[in-house]
Amino acid sequence: MAANKKKKPVILITNDDGITAPGIKNLVEAVKELGQVVVVAPDKPQSGMGHAVTIGQPLRMNKVDIFDGVEAWQTSGTPVDCVKLAVDKVLHRKPDLCLSGINHGANHSINVIYSGTMSAAMEASIESIPSIGFSLLDFNIEADFTAARFFVHQIVSSLLATTMDKHLLLNVNIPAVPKQLIKGIKICRQAYAKYEEDFDERKDPNGKKYYWLTGKFINFDKAKDTDVWALANNYVSVVPVQFDLTNYTLKQQLKKSKLFR
Amino acid sequence: MAANKKKKPVILITNDDGITAPGIKNLVEAVKELGQVVVVAPDKPQSGMGHAVTIGQPLRMNKVDIFDGVEAWQTSGTPVDCVKLAVDKVLHRKPDLCLSGINHGANHSINVIYSGTMSAAMEASIESIPSIGFSLLDFNIEADFTAARFFVHQIVSSLLATTMDKHLLLNVNIPAVPKQLIKGIKICRQAYAKYEEDFDERKDPNGKKYYWLTGKFINFDKAKDTDVWALANNYVSVVPVQFDLTNYTLKQQLKKSKLFR
Repeated sequence: MAANKKKKPVILITNDDGITAPGIKNLVEAVKELGQVVVVAPDKPQSGMGHAVTIGQPLRMNKVDIFDGVEAWQTSGTPVDCVKLAVDKVLHRKPDLCLSGINHGANHSINVIYSGTMSAAMEASIESIPSIGFSLLDFNIEADFTAARFFVHQIVSSLLATTMDKHLLLNVNIPAVPKQLIKGIKICRQAYAKYEEDFDERKDPNGKKYYWLTGKFINFDKAKDTDVWALANNYVSVVPVQFDLTNYTLKQQLKKSKLFR
Repeated sequence: MAANKKKKPVILITNDDGITAPGIKNLVEAVKELGQVVVVAPDKPQSGMGHAVTIGQPLRMNKVDIFDGVEAWQTSGTPVDCVKLAVDKVLHRKPDLCLSGINHGANHSINVIYSGTMSAAMEASIESIPSIGFSLLDFNIEADFTAARFFVHQIVSSLLATTMDKHLLLNVNIPAVPKQLIKGIKICRQAYAKYEEDFDERKDPNGKKYYWLTGKFINFDKAKDTDVWALANNYVSVVPVQFDLTNYTLKQQLKKSKLFR
């Protein structure tokens, strides 16, 4: 893309918190001078949707005017649906870059698998569109995005100045601290962590049980090359992500074992 | 588990086609002599839900009597929710093995990412429960599961006779041909393939547009060590899967590049 300096890159922006979330507005503002930005995002919160796609129902899509001078569409679909609709029905081409977020809340470690933000970015990567998901470690609707905007701009402008692999996929998390406390950017691996589930069991007004998911985050991975470590030490974490889920080590072991012969 | 021969292993079964689908009934029947089977599955089809979890709404769960002599629960949640509910509210322990399927339709190659069947299995693997997703390459509700049942039994009994890694996760696909035409089991990697999307654009009775996802499967990966190749050549494909999505090659490249310094 560095070779094509005359034409502004087309940057598709989506998220999973919904098109009216402050995080996506901050993402648009952080990068709109860097390219021709088009927003296609869900019309409602879609957190925890993972890589869900809508296959049994139709989707709606409407143009909205909520970002100053930026083309924007809201859809009734999941974050992954938004990427598919953007390519096929809005842009009628692949964008040069896809950005997802800025998510309200962490998407480090195992969260990459549950996250609608990262699943949208992964969908773009599968479609040969370089892609980045951004998350700020603050669930608050009134979170301060100042530091996040600075690092989003730095990372996106650095990447636009280079030649990106078509499947490039990054999971970027930003600590919820003032910019002057952030020590820099660390390239990391995904920590092994999980949620210990505990469903809250309640009764409805008719006396029937229902269950509400709660969970405690537990990090089993104490190494210093993980995203969880980087964030705890006030670094922006960048985890390169892939969509080939093959476990090659286990593949070799199973081949040797002749278990299924 | 081979050491613990007296006690039957607890086998959790779930799926994404819903608890009344023929595929899950065939899975239960294929393995019920191998352990103490408990079913916790969605009360409706949940195909394409990926790794979605229900976080903004409560869940319902009811005991049902539809599998001969087998404890079974239907839930209003996604396949991943079912695994979480099973561990926390039904079994009150981790099962020894989790099986998901038998899915009506292929989950080879990139489908592992969209599949509710495989996401349920992956959730179990994250929770340190060895897990296998099974899919038959036949969408038909009246599909013939004879060959699938044979290979499910063979794979599950082989694994129960060995010591399984707690994160063991396998994606098993079975060709839709009579058993005598199946040449055996191949340990494979996930093929690089994708769907070329094409939304069907329609108008509702009020003249407003809606969009329906369609798509053509395209395999870009012509190598002979992939699941797509194995299935096309009448082998059962077994892809070992992992939930660490870190792209270690790109991680090294980015570290060397000093792009973000």
